[in-house]
Amino acid sequence: MAEQLILHEDSRSGNCYKVKLTAALVGKDLDLREYDITKGETRTPEFLKNVNANGRIPVLQVGDRFIPESNAACSYIAEGSSLIPSDPFDHADMLRWMFWEQYNHEPNIATLRFWLSELGLDRLSDLQRLQMPTKREQGNAALGLMDEHLRDRDWFVGGSISLADICLFAYTHVAGDAEFDLTRYPNVLAWIERLKRNPRYIAMDA
Amino acid sequence: MAEQLILHEDSRSGNCYKVKLTAALVGKDLDLREYDITKGETRTPEFLKNVNANGRIPVLQVGDRFIPESNAACSYIAEGSSLIPSDPFDHADMLRWMFWEQYNHEPNIATLRFWLSELGLDRLSDLQRLQMPTKREQGNAALGLMDEHLRDRDWFVGGSISLADICLFAYTHVAGDAEFDLTRYPNVLAWIERLKRNPRYIAMDA
Repeated sequence: MAEQLILHEDSRSGNCYKVKLTAALVGKDLDLREYDITKGETRTPEFLKNVNANGRIPVLQVGDRFIPESNAACSYIAEGSSLIPSDPFDHADMLRWMFWEQYNHEPNIATLRFWLSELGLDRLSDLQRLQMPTKREQGNAALGLMDEHLRDRDWFVGGSISLADICLFAYTHVAGDAEFDLTRYPNVLAWIERLKRNPRYIAMDA
Repeated sequence: MAEQLILHEDSRSGNCYKVKLTAALVGKDLDLREYDITKGETRTPEFLKNVNANGRIPVLQVGDRFIPESNAACSYIAEGSSLIPSDPFDHADMLRWMFWEQYNHEPNIATLRFWLSELGLDRLSDLQRLQMPTKREQGNAALGLMDEHLRDRDWFVGGSISLADICLFAYTHVAGDAEFDLTRYPNVLAWIERLKRNPRYIAMDA
């Protein structure tokens, strides 16, 4: 019998979508527990004590144990599948893009998306408004680097889809919500369409 | 014959130190290439074209191929060693702490350290100064979370040292450079001393 996997999530989050897309591509079932991060539902004493002391989603629950951090949860679910390259260099290269995503991509593109399409301009602090031009510039730099990398490649690592693609896809394909113009990045657009053609693909709002 | 490993680095960087500490603990040799990030030596056209289009160090060179992102470089070097747990849950839990380090720890503690001890207050922009209180608060939250996790554990994952410890150690043990008071975190201090007792330990300025 397969172990039960529970995803603690907010379905508007690209970080949560990564985990669901990974599970869909490898054919695993997830039970979902929904939280509203804009209402502080992941900062309650119960959540901090029982699910994640860091107060964030997604968290993958495996039996009575918990794996926070979206890219770590994807790794657990994809273990042993073709989404994780077995070649040592390709494996490290996959992790390279996943760490890059969390450091150079998500804090710019996902944060602007959250500020603009979830919180709304009126609810931003002065400090958040001041950070917007830098995040805009760094977000475009991240998309430009992806576009250049995809100039002569179908997938980020090796010759087939890996977790690197899934983790980068999550916030890239909805970067328009953060007012990024993806038509400036034609190789990224082609890669998005390529990934969507996977027969096991599920949409973010599925 | 072992493959040649070259580390492109700035020896003041904790992210570069992680890679050197990992290599020391598993007994691998690294050839070093030094760059001064404060002089823009990782943003030259040559560096961007030949080493890392993202303009950052460390980059691990394996033959004529390159692995940017410190935690990915550590993973490549430690492949097959006891620093990477083989149990699937522990493996994902190790990655969880490594992703957490790059998202919640490094952008606060390492960035404040760079601003305060490398650039100096006088050279900071207004936006950087305005971000300091938030980074201070979030850096202390990260140290507090580590201290709580270490309350009843010697190491971050399972019962022995792993890459999670090495990647967290790098900027934690020099958090004083960023004016964090580590005496507030006694379990973290004990863990720092525990790691330093490893017979293969090398210091950051070695």
